[in-house]
Amino acid sequence: MIQTRSPSVSIREMSPRDGLQIETQWVPTERKVELIDALSRSGVRGIQYTSFVPPKWVPQFKDADEVAARITRNPAVKYIGLIPNLKGLDRALRAGVDEISLPAAATESFARKNLNRTVAECMDTVAEVVKATPAGLVVSCALSMSFGCAYEGHVPVARVVEICDRLAETKVGIITLSDTTGMGNPALVADIVGQVRARCPGLPLAVHLHNTRGAGLANALAALQEGVDVFDGSVGGLGGCPYAPKATGNIATEDLVNMLHGMGVETGVDLDALVACAHLAESILGKTLPGQVMHAGAWPPAGRIAPASASAIGHVS
Amino acid sequence: MIQTRSPSVSIREMSPRDGLQIETQWVPTERKVELIDALSRSGVRGIQYTSFVPPKWVPQFKDADEVAARITRNPAVKYIGLIPNLKGLDRALRAGVDEISLPAAATESFARKNLNRTVAECMDTVAEVVKATPAGLVVSCALSMSFGCAYEGHVPVARVVEICDRLAETKVGIITLSDTTGMGNPALVADIVGQVRARCPGLPLAVHLHNTRGAGLANALAALQEGVDVFDGSVGGLGGCPYAPKATGNIATEDLVNMLHGMGVETGVDLDALVACAHLAESILGKTLPGQVMHAGAWPPAGRIAPASASAIGHVS
Repeated sequence: MIQTRSPSVSIREMSPRDGLQIETQWVPTERKVELIDALSRSGVRGIQYTSFVPPKWVPQFKDADEVAARITRNPAVKYIGLIPNLKGLDRALRAGVDEISLPAAATESFARKNLNRTVAECMDTVAEVVKATPAGLVVSCALSMSFGCAYEGHVPVARVVEICDRLAETKVGIITLSDTTGMGNPALVADIVGQVRARCPGLPLAVHLHNTRGAGLANALAALQEGVDVFDGSVGGLGGCPYAPKATGNIATEDLVNMLHGMGVETGVDLDALVACAHLAESILGKTLPGQVMHAGAWPPAGRIAPASASAIGHVS
Repeated sequence: MIQTRSPSVSIREMSPRDGLQIETQWVPTERKVELIDALSRSGVRGIQYTSFVPPKWVPQFKDADEVAARITRNPAVKYIGLIPNLKGLDRALRAGVDEISLPAAATESFARKNLNRTVAECMDTVAEVVKATPAGLVVSCALSMSFGCAYEGHVPVARVVEICDRLAETKVGIITLSDTTGMGNPALVADIVGQVRARCPGLPLAVHLHNTRGAGLANALAALQEGVDVFDGSVGGLGGCPYAPKATGNIATEDLVNMLHGMGVETGVDLDALVACAHLAESILGKTLPGQVMHAGAWPPAGRIAPASASAIGHVS
């Protein structure tokens, strides 16, 4: 039997930020708001709804303040704003975020090339932001390249554990282990999660898994078995991977939720509503997204799969 | 840590049969032979290379005898021929198959509508074929709808276990538990595999998993953890699902192999060669296939991922 430590998990939706970030076509503010509002009614616990980076860095988020002002907030949802550094904090606080997310990286190459600083400087920034953030607001840190690096390849497990341990000292509220390029596998995920949990007992952990090589849900299963109870996803698998241009990005949130519900793990998510969000995202982007449940239909619940007409003896197996 | 019982597993390739079966466009004989021959050099242990059904049932296989005659056989590969019944046996034996695969089903609805007989009659056929097959040739049985039925929905685990137990009495060589419509989840897969193994100790088991709802590799992981060491796949994810027309079909063999290799599970497969087969399948069908590793690049081995140019501070996480 599959052993999971949590009868329920929390789902955080990444499509408005990690999903849209890689999209080169401009998504109008009202459509971003429409997607975020639909997501906020689906039962997800958190939505990373925008990024408070300077517009010149990511033009897609030049309307971050306006998006934050125009959404219809659901008190049951944590609205998570990404900020690059301490400068972004004021802007995020003025926008009324419920949670701050900061980037960090497991490798110097990624930190330097993508965040323009060292790994140690990333951790210093987290510490500064934690200190400057009003009590009651969670500061989370997403550790990119935790399971492999597009620049450096294999990432030593000990390095990830060490960085998590140092981040824990900053009193960060939750660390997200990110498989930014889908280089993880279930054995590695289990190994890293297990070692981080052993070294940092009590530190909340999330996983952010990309499906770049098809193993996203298998990696999620491995994390679940190791006790992780916070999972990121992006409806429809919206997004991509800058290091593998032909590949898909985040795991599709609705595929994850469908699997978890099938296993009897509660998410609090209305899967039909989430699938509708995936179709909304398709309509906003005007293209077919790689999510599977949105095209095949959910299972369970019962009754969702319409029996097809019989096809004689063309055995499928 | 992830516990797997097998340091090595066998991979069986389904694309020439289960992959092509659903394709409505005719694939010329020489291209089928080209694909099978390429697959036979990739290190897979078995290839379900054609179906000896009457041509009127599945026109795609009207050239089964010619395909069998024209391939270049690799003695290290088992060439598996699907037959619908005892009548197909002679044809398969004349064609020189190494292994016979027979269909059966876990539900009466599927058996009746897809195989035109009852579940009990399927088992009788297996028994007849086992008796009529020369010593040394393995007879395998693929049990469709083991994890859910397109017509009946949930399939009681006890029913699957009971059918496997009765099939084991026929001296069938291996039973393949098939998730024909991707309705399985890791908990269910672990439950069924665990119960079948407990009831039929010593009976070789394989799993045949479709990725219809995105959980194919997660289900494979669950089966691996329960001791299954024979896995089916279809390069590129070639194929589909007749019960979910917009959905994908089999798990992509190269995605499975990539995950297993990452976990340190040996397959004997040359992943580069297998990825080349996936691209060949794309070229034969003239369309993009849903396999992920074929588009993203394998990981590991090292050195396969070309570092992209730095992109300032557009943090992906």
